[in-house]
Amino acid sequence: MNGDTAWFYKRKKVLVTGGLGFIGLNTCSRLLELGAEVTVLDNFMPPADKMLDGVRSRLKIAIADMRDEEKVERVVREQEVIFNLAGKSGAADSNKAPLNDLDINCRGHLTILESCRRFNPRVTIVFPSSRLVYGKPQYLPVDERHPLAPESIYAAHKLAVENYHLIYGRLYGIHATVLRISNPYGPLQAGDARAYGIANRFIQAAVRGEKITLFGQGEQCRDYLYIDDLVEALVKAGCTEAARGRIYNIGDSATVTLMELAQLAVATAGRGEIVTVPWPEEYRAIETGDFRSDISSAARELGWHPSTNIAEGVTRTVAYYREALAD
Amino acid sequence: MNGDTAWFYKRKKVLVTGGLGFIGLNTCSRLLELGAEVTVLDNFMPPADKMLDGVRSRLKIAIADMRDEEKVERVVREQEVIFNLAGKSGAADSNKAPLNDLDINCRGHLTILESCRRFNPRVTIVFPSSRLVYGKPQYLPVDERHPLAPESIYAAHKLAVENYHLIYGRLYGIHATVLRISNPYGPLQAGDARAYGIANRFIQAAVRGEKITLFGQGEQCRDYLYIDDLVEALVKAGCTEAARGRIYNIGDSATVTLMELAQLAVATAGRGEIVTVPWPEEYRAIETGDFRSDISSAARELGWHPSTNIAEGVTRTVAYYREALAD
Repeated sequence: MNGDTAWFYKRKKVLVTGGLGFIGLNTCSRLLELGAEVTVLDNFMPPADKMLDGVRSRLKIAIADMRDEEKVERVVREQEVIFNLAGKSGAADSNKAPLNDLDINCRGHLTILESCRRFNPRVTIVFPSSRLVYGKPQYLPVDERHPLAPESIYAAHKLAVENYHLIYGRLYGIHATVLRISNPYGPLQAGDARAYGIANRFIQAAVRGEKITLFGQGEQCRDYLYIDDLVEALVKAGCTEAARGRIYNIGDSATVTLMELAQLAVATAGRGEIVTVPWPEEYRAIETGDFRSDISSAARELGWHPSTNIAEGVTRTVAYYREALAD
Repeated sequence: MNGDTAWFYKRKKVLVTGGLGFIGLNTCSRLLELGAEVTVLDNFMPPADKMLDGVRSRLKIAIADMRDEEKVERVVREQEVIFNLAGKSGAADSNKAPLNDLDINCRGHLTILESCRRFNPRVTIVFPSSRLVYGKPQYLPVDERHPLAPESIYAAHKLAVENYHLIYGRLYGIHATVLRISNPYGPLQAGDARAYGIANRFIQAAVRGEKITLFGQGEQCRDYLYIDDLVEALVKAGCTEAARGRIYNIGDSATVTLMELAQLAVATAGRGEIVTVPWPEEYRAIETGDFRSDISSAARELGWHPSTNIAEGVTRTVAYYREALAD
């Protein structure tokens, strides 16, 4: 299948919105490998970074907010595939500032889709949604027919933006695919405050020799997805005709507890320390319990399988942070 | 059960947002009957109207947009129950102006909920969503577990606002109930342009002796719900503890085709004429086919049953329009 994606993306004009973030930069890196002409739309140019500049220097970068209609219109024209990764993440944050989350995530994505409808209605778009649209699982593993019960404003808006993409597909012919991703982790993100997701925060803390704080006993199970596996799912979704108008879970087939993840990070880094504290109320309220994705639809229709187990993924991520955090 | 609702609402402070619209005014009328102190928040004061002023004159009316944080804050304080009926309706309109629909329906309702969270977190809220969140039915009758596949921006936003209410219930203790209503019709709306829903448009056209235009052969089946039955569902939802955090379909148990509805309107009015035209593309794209609600959850948990059949409902509505449209 790598042969197929390379054939498909060679010299393709591809736009990655939010392309300077964690998932974005990894996606760009892979698309460049596959021979695509990659443009990034992002609202923030991060400072120079020895680990990231190798990828960034090969991208066309447009710095603009996705709510800026005029700039978005210019950048979506002539693109053949869009990976629509822009947006604000963070379930707890979204509950603290719901109107801000609405404005960025819903208005932003509607602005992009409106530009596509007007200036590029035959484009292919891949939108990464979140496992959080399911809420607390009623059964495991969670397949795509599981009831939808978002427990945060962030998740409610992810679901709304999923629907925007599917509606624009049906009404205007845009080729849209939605991926509901679980918990990605791995290399390539700015070293400090922007740590994406819990696995990277743990690994980064271990490499720095800091404390990893677990709520309760850290007993909830999750399927952590190594970033290369997620990126492969994104690029496959973008080049698979049968994926149009479809929704796929993208997670790992195996789960570990948060405690196991923390222990693995500390053991692999040879540093760090685990402490447990009682659950803070604002996190308990949006905690969704054990989670495992049923990824059989993506396996069947995209020919996609995660190939990096958690031990290998943590090892590679520790190696990355060791280098990134060194002076 | 009427005894129960009368006991509950007597001297209760109740806010009806969108209270001057079709569903709103009928709800206010019933709440006044039940002895409630009714305040209305609406963004528009309709002109004097002989049929409506009897109700309107007994309401406290605050004219303000629901996005106006300051005014909303003042009006939600001290309310015991809120019927959250404000918003812009119209699936086809929403697809033409999606950002406008977002701003009114999502930002508006988030603004109301944020005000409740800050100033009145123990309030009870009933939110009327729409059967349109289900999209094209995969089976009939449609129960509340039917997959959600909104086919218009309006329906996507109804689903988002459902989720806002349920999330604010879980996070902040607001008592929220969502009703997914089918196609209401009946008396009490301003005579002209603001005809709500297809049934009232047909009946109004028949009473005026005008043409009723059907797309295709008008063969799609719907469950039309007489407004008094809908209002009864709203007031029951507002006073039933078991309804908190729950979603109920509210429709009629019987269906008729659009053609049958049009014929009934013409026969009852003794005027009017039915014409059929090919489907316009913008309507075909959002047409959801036959629909019938499974209303057994509402029957069981709210003790609610629709009691007005379509022949009786059309007769009452024709009588209303005859008087309303007479000079």
